[in-house]
Amino acid sequence: MAKVELYHWEPNANSGKPLVTLLEKGVEFVSHYTDLLNWDQHKPEYLAINPSGTIPTLIIDGVMLNESTEMGEYIDSYCDGPALRPADPVERQRMRWWGKWMDTYFGPSLSMTGWHAFVGPFARANKGEDELRAAIARIPLKERRDAWTMALFGTFPEDALAESRRRVAEGIAFVEAELGKSTWFAGQHYSLADINAFSNLYALPVSQPHIANSDNTPNLMRWLKRVYERPAIQTSFTYGRTQLAQRALDVMKTL
Amino acid sequence: MAKVELYHWEPNANSGKPLVTLLEKGVEFVSHYTDLLNWDQHKPEYLAINPSGTIPTLIIDGVMLNESTEMGEYIDSYCDGPALRPADPVERQRMRWWGKWMDTYFGPSLSMTGWHAFVGPFARANKGEDELRAAIARIPLKERRDAWTMALFGTFPEDALAESRRRVAEGIAFVEAELGKSTWFAGQHYSLADINAFSNLYALPVSQPHIANSDNTPNLMRWLKRVYERPAIQTSFTYGRTQLAQRALDVMKTL
Repeated sequence: MAKVELYHWEPNANSGKPLVTLLEKGVEFVSHYTDLLNWDQHKPEYLAINPSGTIPTLIIDGVMLNESTEMGEYIDSYCDGPALRPADPVERQRMRWWGKWMDTYFGPSLSMTGWHAFVGPFARANKGEDELRAAIARIPLKERRDAWTMALFGTFPEDALAESRRRVAEGIAFVEAELGKSTWFAGQHYSLADINAFSNLYALPVSQPHIANSDNTPNLMRWLKRVYERPAIQTSFTYGRTQLAQRALDVMKTL
Repeated sequence: MAKVELYHWEPNANSGKPLVTLLEKGVEFVSHYTDLLNWDQHKPEYLAINPSGTIPTLIIDGVMLNESTEMGEYIDSYCDGPALRPADPVERQRMRWWGKWMDTYFGPSLSMTGWHAFVGPFARANKGEDELRAAIARIPLKERRDAWTMALFGTFPEDALAESRRRVAEGIAFVEAELGKSTWFAGQHYSLADINAFSNLYALPVSQPHIANSDNTPNLMRWLKRVYERPAIQTSFTYGRTQLAQRALDVMKTL
């Protein structure tokens, strides 16, 4: 049996993908909660494992992985448990297409709005500027230093935020239309595409209630309900330690 | 045998990936040269095939694909010919890691510098502003309209260009270090990772000669030579119609 360790934050966005994938397959693993808001990911002991200082990190039989979408394919091919990649080549391609769309289009846009509204304000609460500057200085990648600086000091450019909000709104409309064509993201089978999508979309009914609601996006709401009902998803929220997990439970009640 | 049609521009960047993959596997296909600089990709007949108006588009037995990195896995699993994905799970994971890095980090940065220096100036040559504005108005995706506007009018923000140039330089140094550890990008086997990387990197010795040269990046230069020597790569350049293909031949002579 594979020896698996997962360093993760809350069960959402990037950390949610490998966490749910492991739970769906029934893979035993050691969970290391890594506090993004306390910059655990930039501490020397974490950088010794994953030099990029990003969360999550997956270690499987000594192999380190630090790209969350790609972790899914590795777990699915390497570990026992139900298949999470469709056998049909067209569905499998569709699964990967959604992964790419989430990673390069929708995800970064939703992420910027979330970092602006949530990660920045929470991480800077009760901390002085010197402490924040010192935390930023420890970040190994310049692009992550830049993102943290903008989040902590609320300086994402207004035009970039506006473009992100536009993409989020257009993206939700696109997802709604696509979910009118098939039960799951890739087609007829629940797959890594749904796990990745859920990690990004699960909170939309509370974070974007003016866009994601039963009048506007009935297909999305039905799909969210189907995914929320899965035991692996419900278990994944028990790995959370902030109000985000409670928020998920609140969303679930509204579906 | 699969019925394959490829709509592609020059054999580089995104178009180069499926073109080389098909040639490496010996798959018969119909080539449709699609002139990016003449905006063939925004014409109604093209949008009827690929509504996003991006190049390349691959049609295999009636299935349309419009994400070039993901095309590789589909071609490799669906078509006959030598395997281009390593059987070893760690190498296969590494192949995908590089695909992600190229698509989300290095590629967009290199692309911005190339659009600024080459695509914009070439596409706007001998055209009036009205013609350029009309061409932009026909682009279906707002993010592509924005990119074309900045390329055609030379208005990429200076700080964005500077950050792209920084990432290109850091990325080349990273590639150089990694190619000191293994013969090919994913490990011991030539794979889709090399095809994707080559499509992005093949012109560096002429486009970034101050960074990519035999003193600074000997591992990269040796890898480029190994890839350039492959018959499929040499054949791929015969599909080009602009000076880019000639530029590739010039690079090859210097290796």
